Amino acid sequence: MKVDGKDIRTIWLDDEERTVKIIDQRKLPHEFIIVDLNTVDDAIEAIEDMYVRGAPLIGATGAYGMYLATLNAPENRVDFEYLNQEGDRIKSARPTAVNLAWGVDKVLAAVADTADPAEIVRIARETAGAITEQEVENCRKIGDHGLSLIEELSRRKSGQTVNILTHCNAGWLACIEHGTATAPIYAAFDHGLDIHVWVDETRPLNQGTRLTAWELGKHGVKHTIITDNAGGYLMQHAMVDIVIVGTDRTAVSGDVANKIGTYLKALAAWDNQVPFYVALPSSTFDWNIRDGVSDIPIEQRDPAEIKYVYGLDQAGPTSVLICPESSPAANFAFDVTPAKYVTGFITERGICKAAEEDIRRLFPDEGRGSETEGRGQRAEASK
Amino acid sequence: MKVDGKDIRTIWLDDEERTVKIIDQRKLPHEFIIVDLNTVDDAIEAIEDMYVRGAPLIGATGAYGMYLATLNAPENRVDFEYLNQEGDRIKSARPTAVNLAWGVDKVLAAVADTADPAEIVRIARETAGAITEQEVENCRKIGDHGLSLIEELSRRKSGQTVNILTHCNAGWLACIEHGTATAPIYAAFDHGLDIHVWVDETRPLNQGTRLTAWELGKHGVKHTIITDNAGGYLMQHAMVDIVIVGTDRTAVSGDVANKIGTYLKALAAWDNQVPFYVALPSSTFDWNIRDGVSDIPIEQRDPAEIKYVYGLDQAGPTSVLICPESSPAANFAFDVTPAKYVTGFITERGICKAAEEDIRRLFPDEGRGSETEGRGQRAEASK
Repeated sequence: MKVDGKDIRTIWLDDEERTVKIIDQRKLPHEFIIVDLNTVDDAIEAIEDMYVRGAPLIGATGAYGMYLATLNAPENRVDFEYLNQEGDRIKSARPTAVNLAWGVDKVLAAVADTADPAEIVRIARETAGAITEQEVENCRKIGDHGLSLIEELSRRKSGQTVNILTHCNAGWLACIEHGTATAPIYAAFDHGLDIHVWVDETRPLNQGTRLTAWELGKHGVKHTIITDNAGGYLMQHAMVDIVIVGTDRTAVSGDVANKIGTYLKALAAWDNQVPFYVALPSSTFDWNIRDGVSDIPIEQRDPAEIKYVYGLDQAGPTSVLICPESSPAANFAFDVTPAKYVTGFITERGICKAAEEDIRRLFPDEGRGSETEGRGQRAEASK
Repeated sequence: MKVDGKDIRTIWLDDEERTVKIIDQRKLPHEFIIVDLNTVDDAIEAIEDMYVRGAPLIGATGAYGMYLATLNAPENRVDFEYLNQEGDRIKSARPTAVNLAWGVDKVLAAVADTADPAEIVRIARETAGAITEQEVENCRKIGDHGLSLIEELSRRKSGQTVNILTHCNAGWLACIEHGTATAPIYAAFDHGLDIHVWVDETRPLNQGTRLTAWELGKHGVKHTIITDNAGGYLMQHAMVDIVIVGTDRTAVSGDVANKIGTYLKALAAWDNQVPFYVALPSSTFDWNIRDGVSDIPIEQRDPAEIKYVYGLDQAGPTSVLICPESSPAANFAFDVTPAKYVTGFITERGICKAAEEDIRRLFPDEGRGSETEGRGQRAEASK
């Protein structure tokens, strides 16, 4: 995607292929900083402290973290035990994101039958690269499929502005390119449709205000920032034609774990007959979880993320305390939207209902093997 | 209420009874500043720029603003035309708050038959004082009635902590004492019940984080700050026993206009069978509006309130830009919760359902006269 005229992705290898480059997304939109990841600890810090975020990007970073593990093995001892340990450390950086374990496990599986250390390094690098390219291609296809929904709304409105509401950042910054929830938006924009995006602020980390507004603005897409509280009002007054959000983990039943507050928007959409779509690559499906509300583990993060807000004053970037210092805060990072409030999924293979039968019809080859069962068991264990 | 051991209200007259004293609530919790209002313009600025906020306090400030009008009449000419003009100026400071017009009109009605300027000044002062005392008494009664709901929940939970969620600040800072939504909370606390309050941050002006957390903390009530996004998650996981919020204007049908985001919490409460109560003095009823969503005018405020967040960094209080400077923002201040999502009203006369029949049974003497019809017409005109 374009930033100040230059093509950029959210993660890439430097020319010598020994350093992973990422954008420190915590500093956006006020500072645009590229960070080097040279060790597994660097990758863990980047994931845990949210230099990188978003399911596809976390997955790619996990995979590249495993590549860094192969590069940095003690005394060049790249054995199964060591790689598994490093994989477990990376996976525990963000327990809710199923893509993280998926990315790590893809690399582990790819190198499992190889003994030569140099070969393991090469395979890990190529696997991480292939995961990355696959995510780009998935996002492009999500954009193609989602475009049809926006085209239909545009037709129904005789070409008048289609208003799209999104929550958090499921944009290219959360992925590698295109984004998930934003892929149909960018596709519609590139096709010349008249669209406007309501950008939910997305407290506490303001991914909407900081990231979605930034990337839409850089691309030239009309948008307006609103508080997380405002979506219900807008939907009551017919100011939203469609809601499109991303997901961090999707139960095979259709329940959707996404950034805290998504569920409230889904309720408002349901109450006002506004279509509510979730855009996702199939890597976010958890084929073993059926009751999302009970069984998807929800990460609880540092209360300081609520009590302090990052921004820019006249002296430069700073964090401000917004409450009495002595007041406690609780920081639940995700919620689960029950499938009944989801109109449909926009996937890389097309659009389907948020129901197991429909999902399995689109992905008959997925979720039957032992690898994915393993994933489900881990989710259960981390509750 | 107590602040650092000292009894204080949100509005009072100085000893010479020529200056109205208020707390500049925009600076809380980081600075505790008392402001003098000496003119009508001072009162308008205090209302418009939200030094004071909350329906009952806005009503009292409007009434005291009329007292200041009588004190500051040009060449001591306290005639009907002048007072009406000043009243109209005050009323237009915040169009959604029905209490503002109510407070102003009470003073206008009280002085209508008086010609002597000194008498007009005295009557205006006493009327503003009486409105203030009446609001205190109403809040005390709301606390008494609401206490019964919390006592019942405490019994059902065998004395375990009752978890109450509230949005915005309908606390004593929004009133004179006790608060509306907080009146049952303070009453329960004072009765020794084990309670805990989830405090919604309430973007964009963070009245929950800044004000509700502050006043609950000063009183010693257990509380936890959450983002506006979190309530749905908490309700899905049985972590909320009751929601109690305030209201700025209440349609006689039971539709409730309150701080933006209230509607989303009501939907979540409805979806999870959590009782959702609105605490209100009957002065917030608009006896002429039946369709709250269509007919209650919603104030749109300065986008800067969203783009900049007030807080404290190491250099002191400051405001930080939290988004790209070029991104637009839209700031709708209220939304309307349809009556069907409201379990009941806690009023100064008791608890009733959010339905016209039940409301009129509790207030048979209200909303029939010409004065209140006038109020309804203004609401229509200001859409």
